[in-house]
Amino acid sequence: MSAAKRLIPLLDRVLVEKVVAPTKSLGGVLLPEVASAKINQGTVLAVGPGRRTSTGELIPVGVKAGDKVLLPEYGGTPVKLEDTEYMIFRDEELLGVLQN
Amino acid sequence: MSAAKRLIPLLDRVLVEKVVAPTKSLGGVLLPEVASAKINQGTVLAVGPGRRTSTGELIPVGVKAGDKVLLPEYGGTPVKLEDTEYMIFRDEELLGVLQN
Amino acid sequence: MSAAKRLIPLLDRVLVEKVVAPTKSLGGVLLPEVASAKINQGTVLAVGPGRRTSTGELIPVGVKAGDKVLLPEYGGTPVKLEDTEYMIFRDEELLGVLQN
Amino acid sequence: MSAAKRLIPLLDRVLVEKVVAPTKSLGGVLLPEVASAKINQGTVLAVGPGRRTSTGELIPVGVKAGDKVLLPEYGGTPVKLEDTEYMIFRDEELLGVLQN
Amino acid sequence: MSAAKRLIPLLDRVLVEKVVAPTKSLGGVLLPEVASAKINQGTVLAVGPGRRTSTGELIPVGVKAGDKVLLPEYGGTPVKLEDTEYMIFRDEELLGVLQN
Amino acid sequence: MSAAKRLIPLLDRVLVEKVVAPTKSLGGVLLPEVASAKINQGTVLAVGPGRRTSTGELIPVGVKAGDKVLLPEYGGTPVKLEDTEYMIFRDEELLGVLQN
Amino acid sequence: MSAAKRLIPLLDRVLVEKVVAPTKSLGGVLLPEVASAKINQGTVLAVGPGRRTSTGELIPVGVKAGDKVLLPEYGGTPVKLEDTEYMIFRDEELLGVLQN
Repeated sequence: MSAAKRLIPLLDRVLVEKVVAPTKSLGGVLLPEVASAKINQGTVLAVGPGRRTSTGELIPVGVKAGDKVLLPEYGGTPVKLEDTEYMIFRDEELLGVLQN
Repeated sequence: MSAAKRLIPLLDRVLVEKVVAPTKSLGGVLLPEVASAKINQGTVLAVGPGRRTSTGELIPVGVKAGDKVLLPEYGGTPVKLEDTEYMIFRDEELLGVLQN
Repeated sequence: MSAAKRLIPLLDRVLVEKVVAPTKSLGGVLLPEVASAKINQGTVLAVGPGRRTSTGELIPVGVKAGDKVLLPEYGGTPVKLEDTEYMIFRDEELLGVLQN
Repeated sequence: MSAAKRLIPLLDRVLVEKVVAPTKSLGGVLLPEVASAKINQGTVLAVGPGRRTSTGELIPVGVKAGDKVLLPEYGGTPVKLEDTEYMIFRDEELLGVLQN
Repeated sequence: MSAAKRLIPLLDRVLVEKVVAPTKSLGGVLLPEVASAKINQGTVLAVGPGRRTSTGELIPVGVKAGDKVLLPEYGGTPVKLEDTEYMIFRDEELLGVLQN
Repeated sequence: MSAAKRLIPLLDRVLVEKVVAPTKSLGGVLLPEVASAKINQGTVLAVGPGRRTSTGELIPVGVKAGDKVLLPEYGGTPVKLEDTEYMIFRDEELLGVLQN
Repeated sequence: MSAAKRLIPLLDRVLVEKVVAPTKSLGGVLLPEVASAKINQGTVLAVGPGRRTSTGELIPVGVKAGDKVLLPEYGGTPVKLEDTEYMIFRDEELLGVLQN
């Protein structure tokens, strides 16, 4: 089993795989670096159990594995698991869920 | 269905489409860039379920899809969905609702 | 109906019209810009429903439309509605109410 | 009725008139500006209804009109009402009450 | 009655008189200024009624008049009452009580 | 018993031993310093009893001794016990648990 | 009774005596200043009654007199009592307890 699959996020954290940007445009033109840096969508791979409020109540995470999510421009923690880059976000940082 | 229609904001976020500024004045004079930058109104496209208080209670969002809202001068997160620019605000950032 | 009248502030926000400073003194002398900048009174045009505490309780706004209020030197958000400048304050920013 | 008497402070605010510093010492020597700047006592003219806690409970203001109070070196908001300078403090900023 | 005796601190404030540093060492040598600046003990002259928590409960002050207290290196507000310098601390700033 | 084994972390702290980076690559090439600095995994050696919420409720630590954890890029306190370097993290700083 | 023994810390404060660093190594070599600065262990001499939460509940201190504690690299307040240097920490700053 890959490390990404073995990772269980803690608290309200969400493990996200960024949507891979095509390295070439449809017409075969190589897309510049900056375009790939602006990817703002990803797929949720795993979520934590949630966060506790100051009164000790558990607030479950608002997304689930498989969800396609809209990512914030800043924030999140990049993590490398077996040479692949993933992102970990706090539940609260994710902007929205994209439905099919 | 367009990406903007497929997006469900998380927590107390609100997806807003800024009111398009006319590129020409009534008399046909081209309006300078700065005028368009000062648009402070928008239409709510979608809202999240709300935010939980520290005691775990859900506070629903104060606006609904279709509402015309007064936007703050600063704040909000620009998001690009299928080449169109939208704004995402936290419910609390919106200044007011404009009634018809 | 004017935009200012159509605006319903959100949360604990208060729409205020600053008391217009006379452009000339009683003796007809033109008052300098700085005097007009120091206006610290205004009239409440509209108020929001109030703010919720961390336990979800609604705290209504402490002023009402028509109140003459003492404004803080700093703070508030200027908004332009149909070419007229108004101010939006959080309820908590207003210093006091001036009785007749 | 003077503006100072017509003002009802909002929340936990306290309207204070600083104790007037004598412009001359007992021996008739003109006191320098700095001495007058160091006045740390005042008289409470009016108080607001109090502040609400995060659970919505009202905490009344700890001083009342007529109280002679010890003022902090920094803080407070100067307000001018009909050409007279007053200070507005949050209840919490006042250091103590001076009994007769 | 002296001003220091007439002062009733507000909230969780504590009026403290710093222990007077001897201006000469036992052997009669004049102590430099810096030594006097490092006094870290004082005597409590008066205490306020206490502070209210966010739920409105009163937390009484942890020291009482007459207590000899260990003072923090920084913090506290110097106040001058009838030409004598005192210190006002928030209850929470005091480090400890020195028993006889 | 070694100092690391004798240490009981306080509150929600977690004593972590970083996974030792191989000083040589599989092919025998000496790995540069920077590679070793990027270790983001460790083993939990001991955990504290947990943290209390503002209402006094105990929130136990989300990991246990023996857990393999994903560490944040920044944060944590390095501690030296008998010449060996360990890390102490607040429970909340750990990103996730890696299952076998 | 020495001043250190007479001191009762307030709130969640802990009076700590740093473990004295040997001024010479076992082989008799004089240790440089920097080594002594890195002492990260101490003995608890006295503890306060604890801290109250925002709901007024008392949280007792997690260590007791006699405990050997692991100290943070930064933080704590140095206090001098009868020419001896001690440290005062908030309960929360201490990293862990070293068992025998």
